[in-house]
Amino acid sequence: MSRTPLSPTPRTVVNRHRERAATDRAALDDVLDSALICHLGVLFDGAPVVLPTGYGRDGDTLYLHGSTGSRSMGPGPVCVTVTIVDGIIYARSVMHHSMNYRSAVVLGTTRLVDDPEEKLRGLEVITEHLAPGSWGHARLPNKKELAATVVLALDLTEASVKIRNAPPNDEDFDVEANTAWAGVLPVTTGWGVPESASPLPVPEHVLKR
Amino acid sequence: MSRTPLSPTPRTVVNRHRERAATDRAALDDVLDSALICHLGVLFDGAPVVLPTGYGRDGDTLYLHGSTGSRSMGPGPVCVTVTIVDGIIYARSVMHHSMNYRSAVVLGTTRLVDDPEEKLRGLEVITEHLAPGSWGHARLPNKKELAATVVLALDLTEASVKIRNAPPNDEDFDVEANTAWAGVLPVTTGWGVPESASPLPVPEHVLKR
Repeated sequence: MSRTPLSPTPRTVVNRHRERAATDRAALDDVLDSALICHLGVLFDGAPVVLPTGYGRDGDTLYLHGSTGSRSMGPGPVCVTVTIVDGIIYARSVMHHSMNYRSAVVLGTTRLVDDPEEKLRGLEVITEHLAPGSWGHARLPNKKELAATVVLALDLTEASVKIRNAPPNDEDFDVEANTAWAGVLPVTTGWGVPESASPLPVPEHVLKR
Repeated sequence: MSRTPLSPTPRTVVNRHRERAATDRAALDDVLDSALICHLGVLFDGAPVVLPTGYGRDGDTLYLHGSTGSRSMGPGPVCVTVTIVDGIIYARSVMHHSMNYRSAVVLGTTRLVDDPEEKLRGLEVITEHLAPGSWGHARLPNKKELAATVVLALDLTEASVKIRNAPPNDEDFDVEANTAWAGVLPVTTGWGVPESASPLPVPEHVLKR
């Protein structure tokens, strides 16, 4: 798997809280690989529309899942944003309340994946991102299903990563006054008990997720 | 608290999976009140940019938190999308893999909140959404902090809600074949143990969240 370094352009330079900007490529991959969904921003009649979308990463390419009936699948500039909230920052002042989070923003123009081999690979990447192990367990797409599906590719060339992972950042006079509690309340994400819709036993790749 | 019904416009009519569209206002409020962050889509040099943003709801108004240094705070059309992923759908075929989710999309033009009273109220709503109980516990904003903060208001007039809350939806021939497991793996979100950055005891509104 090749890795290109992040290339900040004027659009992806982090203006606010520059200390939270991560510039290495590993951080980008980590954020993209850790979330379940992305938020895809597209233009619709000249206005931005943001839609939750399934995705997956294959090296330097992000694959996005669409459908031939969806408004988000036309050509044009897009923005893919992935955010994981890790904790709530309770500060001594309300204005220093914040979040610990990891966020990636990828800008570019999507490419409609036409090549049948790449389309299948893109669907494998998207499926394995959502449900690791399913590509080797469930029935693979037939021709009719493939035709009804749109896969978009987006190069990871213009991207930025922003990470906050720190305790509250209070004013000195608030720390001294010591009149309010401050700390981090971690946000945890996990899996519940699988709800079977099938007479078969729950497979290992689901049980062990 | 007044409630206006959802008014779908051509932009907010759900095209894909219409059976997942919820049209009542209570569903919109529920989704908006359940998530921690929204994804705010704005135009930047004619292209969409999507940024994770703190927010809160007060009746028919969404308040968004910004800063005078942020690129997302100019006038123009915006899209605010809030998504909660409730479960992963493992189907008998990879193409019927999906998610159970609740998602709200609000379109409109933001209004810069100038009035000091409304600005304070907006900040209260945003703070209490992020950290319920903090407005009555932490130090409230001073004049300098208020001046450095941007609060935007967005009316909840053009919005759509999409909810999937169902078992896998497999093809009959896949159910009959019975060669792959199908079911829902719930996604759970919770709170970890508070990490104190203060000598004070953890207050009730944090402990009991």
